[in-house]
Amino acid sequence: MSWLHISPDSDFSLHNLPFGIFHTGDDRPRAGMAIGSHIIDLEAAAGSGLFGKRRFFKKVFAQETLNEFIALGKPVTNRIRRKVREWLELPGTPENALSILADRQTATMLMPIRVPNYTDFYSSIEHATNVGKMFRPDNPLLPNWRWMPIGYHGRASSIVVSGTPIRRPSGQILVPGGEPDTPIYAPSRQLDFELEMAFVVGKASTLGEPITVENAEEHIFGLVLFNDWSARDIQRWEYVPLGPFLGKNFGSSISPWIVPLEALKPYRVKGPKQTPLPLDYLKSKGAKNLDIALEVTLTSP
Amino acid sequence: MSWLHISPDSDFSLHNLPFGIFHTGDDRPRAGMAIGSHIIDLEAAAGSGLFGKRRFFKKVFAQETLNEFIALGKPVTNRIRRKVREWLELPGTPENALSILADRQTATMLMPIRVPNYTDFYSSIEHATNVGKMFRPDNPLLPNWRWMPIGYHGRASSIVVSGTPIRRPSGQILVPGGEPDTPIYAPSRQLDFELEMAFVVGKASTLGEPITVENAEEHIFGLVLFNDWSARDIQRWEYVPLGPFLGKNFGSSISPWIVPLEALKPYRVKGPKQTPLPLDYLKSKGAKNLDIALEVTLTSP
Repeated sequence: MSWLHISPDSDFSLHNLPFGIFHTGDDRPRAGMAIGSHIIDLEAAAGSGLFGKRRFFKKVFAQETLNEFIALGKPVTNRIRRKVREWLELPGTPENALSILADRQTATMLMPIRVPNYTDFYSSIEHATNVGKMFRPDNPLLPNWRWMPIGYHGRASSIVVSGTPIRRPSGQILVPGGEPDTPIYAPSRQLDFELEMAFVVGKASTLGEPITVENAEEHIFGLVLFNDWSARDIQRWEYVPLGPFLGKNFGSSISPWIVPLEALKPYRVKGPKQTPLPLDYLKSKGAKNLDIALEVTLTSP
Repeated sequence: MSWLHISPDSDFSLHNLPFGIFHTGDDRPRAGMAIGSHIIDLEAAAGSGLFGKRRFFKKVFAQETLNEFIALGKPVTNRIRRKVREWLELPGTPENALSILADRQTATMLMPIRVPNYTDFYSSIEHATNVGKMFRPDNPLLPNWRWMPIGYHGRASSIVVSGTPIRRPSGQILVPGGEPDTPIYAPSRQLDFELEMAFVVGKASTLGEPITVENAEEHIFGLVLFNDWSARDIQRWEYVPLGPFLGKNFGSSISPWIVPLEALKPYRVKGPKQTPLPLDYLKSKGAKNLDIALEVTLTSP
């Protein structure tokens, strides 16, 4: 459907069109959109007039992060997506194609956003029960879990883009068979990660004014994969009563491409029935869950 | 000791010289230092050549926050402090006095820093025991507390400058006498705040490389007062197992002036003797604690 060759098995089809920040060895970070084995250089596209308001969008897409763009809100970010798709579906190769396309294989992907805050939700009953078993075999799922989204703030400043090395942390550990409640300081022996989906929320809200469930999607720009690295031995000793801290905050990896929420519409399903029924302020209508199979491949270096 | 009149009972003596961000109704935020009833306009001072490297410092002090300045590190930030003090101790009123001084009473103070991360430590045994009693009367102080600094990440993006209104949050609350483990959604009925000192850490560090106790002070720029607003009824129901969340993250207030760590040298004392002895990586030498009486005055509007 496009003048551009897009391999049918590419994750980056016309339906995806995720946003990211890249450079091409010129140390000039700018915004792009993945398509097949290419990147749409959004700064160049803006410069060639693809979106109107040439100077405004050229400046927005020449930033080091997508924050300013995301803050413009859905009507604008979705229009850009639509314009790019129209451009890719033109009947023939447009004249500005060469100046707008970059090679994805040789580009360097950078952290797509500046993260001013990061919240980790404990958001599936299977996961919460499994992790709970690790630390509280007798009492894995606590009663509040069924009533509200249980979460905690992670370290926003240690979120890094996929590919950044993560160093095994050292910390206080209770050694099996050691003195009770007497830790040693050592590198973690129980390092793992949780594969998660992270929601990028970027349209500003006002301190003290809640965002309702109905309006939530206006604020969710898109999703990234998220590796929540966890040193379980450190976490086990430190986490009461204030929650996960050094066992979790030494680094979290996100994918460089942010998939717009709109691209995931075909995967929407209803969530499991909730018992007890949620309180009014948490009730939602329609298909709000996503049915996407995530897969992990482990390799040794 | 200065050509400038500084009231002897002012908190902002020649020994304090805290840094902040202000404007004077002209919507032009810039860096300043409090002295008596005045503010040293650091952008203007840089422009008049007080610090050398005129253009560089003029730009640093014309930022909306102190982050860029703080990132320059102690040798630079302390030199600026020294230069300002020398200027204030000149034998007569300097020619550039009028252009550098602003009136503190009519200036508007702004958030002095952009906060990319916020960690709240549970850092006195009396406080940890008191708060512990609120939630776990039988077991207020947990065994890890004596071994390590127990803390959690708060919401960095809801830290606001003193004077910003804080709205009472609504959330899930267990009502005394209600069904067990069955919350209602309502405005908090148990709102309080903890008066704390917050440390502003601003010199960059490298992900994965620890900062030793010996080097910690190179990274601590200064201190602010911090009001840790807390909705205890919300916190009580939500905080297990992941720690404080909505009961704490609706807003935290900091003072607009950051007092440099160096200004607090006269108040340094040894801390209480620790039992058990800390592990090696947490051992420190010398007077690392601060003996400062903090006071709270409550008034109704």
